[in-house]
This record gives sequence, structure tokens and C-alpha cells, in this order.
Amino acid sequence: MFTGLSAFPLTPVTRDGIDETSFAGLVERLAVAEVDSITALGSTGSYPYLNREERFRVAQRAVEHAGDVPVIVGVGALRTRDVLELAADAQKVGASGVLLAPVSYQALTEDEVFGLYEDVTAELSVPLVVYDNPGTTHFAFTDELYARIAELPNVASIKIPGVPADPDEAEGRVCGLRALLPSSVTIGVSGDPLAATGLNAGCHAWYSVLGGTLPEPAVAITRAARAGDTATAVVESERLRPLWELFRRHGSLRVVSAIAELVGLVGHPNLPRPLRGLPDADRAAVANAVERLELGLRAGPGATA
Amino acid sequence: MFTGLSAFPLTPVTRDGIDETSFAGLVERLAVAEVDSITALGSTGSYPYLNREERFRVAQRAVEHAGDVPVIVGVGALRTRDVLELAADAQKVGASGVLLAPVSYQALTEDEVFGLYEDVTAELSVPLVVYDNPGTTHFAFTDELYARIAELPNVASIKIPGVPADPDEAEGRVCGLRALLPSSVTIGVSGDPLAATGLNAGCHAWYSVLGGTLPEPAVAITRAARAGDTATAVVESERLRPLWELFRRHGSLRVVSAIAELVGLVGHPNLPRPLRGLPDADRAAVANAVERLELGLRAGPGATA
Repeated sequence: MFTGLSAFPLTPVTRDGIDETSFAGLVERLAVAEVDSITALGSTGSYPYLNREERFRVAQRAVEHAGDVPVIVGVGALRTRDVLELAADAQKVGASGVLLAPVSYQALTEDEVFGLYEDVTAELSVPLVVYDNPGTTHFAFTDELYARIAELPNVASIKIPGVPADPDEAEGRVCGLRALLPSSVTIGVSGDPLAATGLNAGCHAWYSVLGGTLPEPAVAITRAARAGDTATAVVESERLRPLWELFRRHGSLRVVSAIAELVGLVGHPNLPRPLRGLPDADRAAVANAVERLELGLRAGPGATA
Repeated sequence: MFTGLSAFPLTPVTRDGIDETSFAGLVERLAVAEVDSITALGSTGSYPYLNREERFRVAQRAVEHAGDVPVIVGVGALRTRDVLELAADAQKVGASGVLLAPVSYQALTEDEVFGLYEDVTAELSVPLVVYDNPGTTHFAFTDELYARIAELPNVASIKIPGVPADPDEAEGRVCGLRALLPSSVTIGVSGDPLAATGLNAGCHAWYSVLGGTLPEPAVAITRAARAGDTATAVVESERLRPLWELFRRHGSLRVVSAIAELVGLVGHPNLPRPLRGLPDADRAAVANAVERLELGLRAGPGATA
């Protein structure tokens, strides 16, 4: 379950609450595209902005609409008590795994983060993905901490924030990390622009923002890389360079939110305030990229582009 | 209300929930020490770790036990909807003002932060303090944004994250900022180690971590500076240098948590997990500083030191 493409769908949030119908549609698309897993309530799914009841409903809908595809549910929160409740909820609705980031307000120490994973894994009966996302959590894992946490029960995968751009350096990085971890723990790359590089370097999985909204190109990259066809993975990723540039400039969430709107998958607004969608000028650049890359056409029958 | 010393008490969190009795004791001490205002549920009060019901109770207790001292209540949250609910709750229990930081998970743009303050101030009937705390929110205000937000209705004060250490530069900074803001909006310094410098440079208020646990030395510094006795303010602050060093090394929250334990104001643990108190070695350094500075003796009848 913790190999291949894990697709992170948006959770569309309107002024009236969560648009569960659009969310179900996003999840069904991912199942049709045969992604390897679906991670609901990741950063792309705006998990920290939602309350417990909302997160329960979203997790439930994800499991209901994912068909045979396993669903991983993000359970991160600032307080350990809340993480434990969210993990219990995720298991109750049938999640196959949980994803946990060390969300912070006060900066966390290594021992505090280890303690968080220790407290949570002790109560789990499904596998856990360690979510290292320093851009949002403001916590930087060390390799030593990865290794300590990877020894805890139920730890199944580590979502690393990226790899070096140079393929040899990326391979060195992934090899070095694998040597530190039990063989049962997979390494998944995130940071879509370098995902092909990460997969080619030996990462077992891609935890993907783009794959949650436009699964086909992400599936193509993943299948090629996992089959050893590194050249095709690179070509398919390079083709998407205009998107990666937009991700770098605006953050991936705002860009996929705009793409999902453009291709008719969600309405507007779809991000929880105070977050807003991209300003019009930037939205036009996204529309331009989507058109040039013919991503609208690939978006399936619901597409408006 | 938005001048002088605003003291930020801890919210003691035990394994069983909030220790309301100890919290009430902390608030009463502040009223006895004649601080100018009490800010409940600031960063020192662990606001983002608590749920709505807990925050309601803490705000209520603060108002009940503060006597004639005005109470400001922190209403920050990741989602605008939640901030609006928390602000309504704070007003319901009788808060004299609210404090709002632009808490972030996804990095916020200037327009999003302005939009947050616009949405919240539109619904308020008490004054608001803009809380600029980049160390925890990971959002950096520009002076232009201060000025835009200061024009919104109900904005009464800006809590700036610090001033330059050099007194002349600090004065230049505060003068420059005052020129940008309506005269009705006060400037309050935070970052306790440079509070005397900030007050001497013309800041109207000190939003104080230390003052929430050990009000007397903070009152002394504030009174001296506000009376124009800059030398005494500096001497009183310099005397506390061992504490400021500990604040810099461990963050102010963990240090005041340890002090409050040492002088018998709260039990152990008192921080919400995953946060933990200081390790024993660091706790010993805090105990040493408290003893040398005779802060335990100043802590009043409840003190054990």
C-alpha cells in the first residue's frame, strides 16, 4: 500500500462548508485512474483547517468512494490528544492507514516529536506514514530521528520532503536513508517537481499533490519510474515543467485548487478562509498552462476546458 | 487599556485537562500585582492547543478572577470561521478586547492576512490587538500591512515582535512605525529581553510573557520606563539577564512553565502534549537563576522556593 502513487485530493470548502459531492467525485476519479492509494486530508486536503466532525465525514466519504483503492487519512493536529481522537475516527471509518505530520505552533524539540509518534503509534491498529513537511510544520527531521521513529510499531512509510535535483545525489540520498531504516519501511517522495527524480532514485512511493487532481500524468510518471524506465519518467515530468514552475511560485495548493476549478471538478471558492484562491492574473497563467499541456482534455468527462 | 504592562498567564494543562484552579490563582496574582491588563490565551496561554470549549472556560475564568483589570482574550485559529466563533465567545464572557495572530499552516499572503483582519474586525464590538509573532505564526508583517490593518475598525494596538537592541535604532524604529499608524493605535513590544528597550523607545505597552508568571519585576520595568526613568528600566531588565538568556535558549514558554512549577504556582506537567517541560538539566539552570534572582521570594505566599 505504501508504494507507487498516493494521490492527495483537495477537500473543497465552500462558504457553506465542505462540498462533499465534489469531494466524492474527486475520489472516484482517482479510483478510476487506478492510483495505488488515496491520501485524504493531507495538506492538499486542508486537514488542519477542519474540525473533528468535518474530518470524520471527509474520511468516511473517501473510504466510501475509493472502491478497492486503499485510503490513508491525515490525522495531524497541534495537540496529541486531538491526534489520538482523529486516529481513532480514521480507523472507525475504515482507513487503511494514517498520515501524521508534527504540526507545530511552539517549535518542537526532537524528543517531543518522537514522543508524539510514540504516543500515537502505541494506540494504532493500522500502519502510519510519517509526514515530513517542513514548509508547513516548520519542523525539520534529522535522519537520526527518522531512524528512531521508524523502529516504532506500525510505522510503514516516511514521506520525505524532496530529493536533490541531481540524479546521482538523489540516489545517494535515498540509498543512505534506506540503510538507516528497517526494510519494511518505505520511502515516499513529495514535492511534485522532483518526484520523477525521487522515484528514479529508488523512492518506493510518490505522495503527490498533482496526482490528487490530475491523476493520469502522475500515474504515467510513477508507472514508468517503477518499471525502471527512468527516461520516460523524466520526459513525462519535464513535460509538466510549466506546472512545476507555478507550484514553486504560488505553492502547490493554490495551483491545484485553480486547476480543479478550471477543469470543472470543484466550484469557487474551494479553499478555507483565510486562504484565498490565486488572484486573476495568476489564475490566467494556470489556465494557460493547463491549455498548453492539454490537461483539461485529460481531466475526463466532467472537464469544462 | 492598551498601554502599560499586559501580562500573559500560562494556561496549565494537566493530563486530565485544564487546571482551572491554578489558572484562577495565576490571574488573581496578576490583579494583585496591578498589571495594566491581562491577556489570557496568548501564546504563553497555549491558545492554539485548546478546543473551543476549553477556550471558552479559560476566558470566562480569566474575566471572573481579574477583578478590575481588563482582560484581553486570544482568538487566533487557522480558519477564519473559527476565529469568528472564538471572538464571539470572548465577547460573551466579558473580554475587554481580543488578540489575533495570523496563525498559518499554508503560508499566508498579505492579502489573505488583511482579509482575515477585515473579516474579523467587521464582526467585533470590542477592540482588537494585532498579534505579530512570526516565530510561531511564520508570517512576517510588513509596515505597509500594519498601516492597512490599523485603518480597520476596532483595531486598537499592534503587538510587535521586538525592537533593535540599540536604543537609538529602537527609537527610530518605534517613531517610524508611529508615523504610519493612526494615533489611536498603540504599539506594544513583545520579546521580553528587549522590552525595556522598547518601552524606553516609546512603545506604549509591553505584552509580556514573564509578567504573566512573575508580575512584580515586569511591573517595575514598565512603571520606570513609562515614567521616563529609562535608566531604572534598563537596570531592572539587566538584572534579569540570566532569565533572558534562558528564554533565548529554550523559548520563553518552557522557561516560564518551569518557573511557575518551581515557585509552586502550577503542577507538573502543565504544557499540552506533544509539548513537554524542560529536561532536568535545563530545569536545574532555571532553578539556579530563580534562586540567584530571588524570584521565588517575590512570587508571594504560594511560593515554595
